[in-house]
Amino acid sequence: MIKENKQNSEKKIAGERAAEFIENGMTVGLGTGSTVFYAIKKLGQMVREGLKIQAVSTSDATSELSESLNIKIISIEEINKIDITLDGADEVDKNFNGIKGGGGALLFEKIVALISKNNIWIVDSGKLVDKLGRFPLPIEVIPFGYKRVYDLLDLMKLNPVLRKIGEKIYITDSGNYIIDLHLKEINNSVKLNQELKQITGIIETGLFIDIADIVIVGKNNSVEILRK
Amino acid sequence: MIKENKQNSEKKIAGERAAEFIENGMTVGLGTGSTVFYAIKKLGQMVREGLKIQAVSTSDATSELSESLNIKIISIEEINKIDITLDGADEVDKNFNGIKGGGGALLFEKIVALISKNNIWIVDSGKLVDKLGRFPLPIEVIPFGYKRVYDLLDLMKLNPVLRKIGEKIYITDSGNYIIDLHLKEINNSVKLNQELKQITGIIETGLFIDIADIVIVGKNNSVEILRK
Repeated sequence: MIKENKQNSEKKIAGERAAEFIENGMTVGLGTGSTVFYAIKKLGQMVREGLKIQAVSTSDATSELSESLNIKIISIEEINKIDITLDGADEVDKNFNGIKGGGGALLFEKIVALISKNNIWIVDSGKLVDKLGRFPLPIEVIPFGYKRVYDLLDLMKLNPVLRKIGEKIYITDSGNYIIDLHLKEINNSVKLNQELKQITGIIETGLFIDIADIVIVGKNNSVEILRK
Repeated sequence: MIKENKQNSEKKIAGERAAEFIENGMTVGLGTGSTVFYAIKKLGQMVREGLKIQAVSTSDATSELSESLNIKIISIEEINKIDITLDGADEVDKNFNGIKGGGGALLFEKIVALISKNNIWIVDSGKLVDKLGRFPLPIEVIPFGYKRVYDLLDLMKLNPVLRKIGEKIYITDSGNYIIDLHLKEINNSVKLNQELKQITGIIETGLFIDIADIVIVGKNNSVEILRK
């Protein structure tokens, strides 16, 4: 309970600090999850106070939250570039590589990140790791014939678990399944990402390599801003 | 007109010959397109005459045709292996590598092919090529942010064209877009396939490498059966 409170207050302070990077006239990418929640809330306040921005959302949940705060959401097809994307991460290592997708929005998050000039990740201090992999690595897969992919990942000893909510298979916003790989540690994230992406049926992995430019870490009652 | 008729009669004779590979009790994969059409029609006749099979379909169109002929279609999730898949191809080279996806069903076709013990491709003689690539290579892409993928393929000088039907963007059975790459020739299909699959937003390519076991070629009024 104490840990949970600490984590939440770190998320809040880091999320609010991240929002301050956003300037008038910017096109902003908005990630998904509990940390970005605080950044979006803060952006909503800034918009109320006169900030003019437009935002591209990475999930239905983020679109709903943003629009409830009068943040203008536009379609990704309407723009060519995003100035800054604010997003969370489930794990970040010292090279700014990360695991994302605990919230299930990894595909749209990666696509938005890749058209963003700058990517700012917002995390609580518990997300910084020496080596990626303790957090299960999410993989987005095509539902049609997913069992073959599951069996293949099992054969590769990657400890796959099909994500469910209760008894029901979890479905992403783009209608796919998530398989979480319980790896404990990842020795070569670049190679693992490449190998997984070669498999037919796998759409995208939660390994975000060489994407983040700035990581904002909530640490107790302050934030640390890490730059690449 | 004459060519069209020759092509169709080659497709028919090859498709019907392919159906003869199917035996009682088999689980059969059924591809999509104008050549498989004749194989499915023939299978329907064989079922009427007592053949007992179950089939996994690669498209809504194939499911509808098959069911109209009383061929039992089952979900891919109900089976672990397919005995034989019958499918067409848009181009096949001497190493039995091919381009597929002219009909837009490449993703499900590749998934079905990969759980099949044997893959039989049915083609008219015009589909055999020395080198792949004259037929535009179809790529299945996520609609969300597809312009970035398009621009990237354009930068790579792969001559991308977003597939449309009239003014409308073509949508695959799994809700995605197709970008056709007008390459003229592909010098290293294995490498190209690997590179394309690394791109976020690309789900699958129409390059079918090392998949076909048997190619049945309609040649004028006879068939040639090529084995690997």
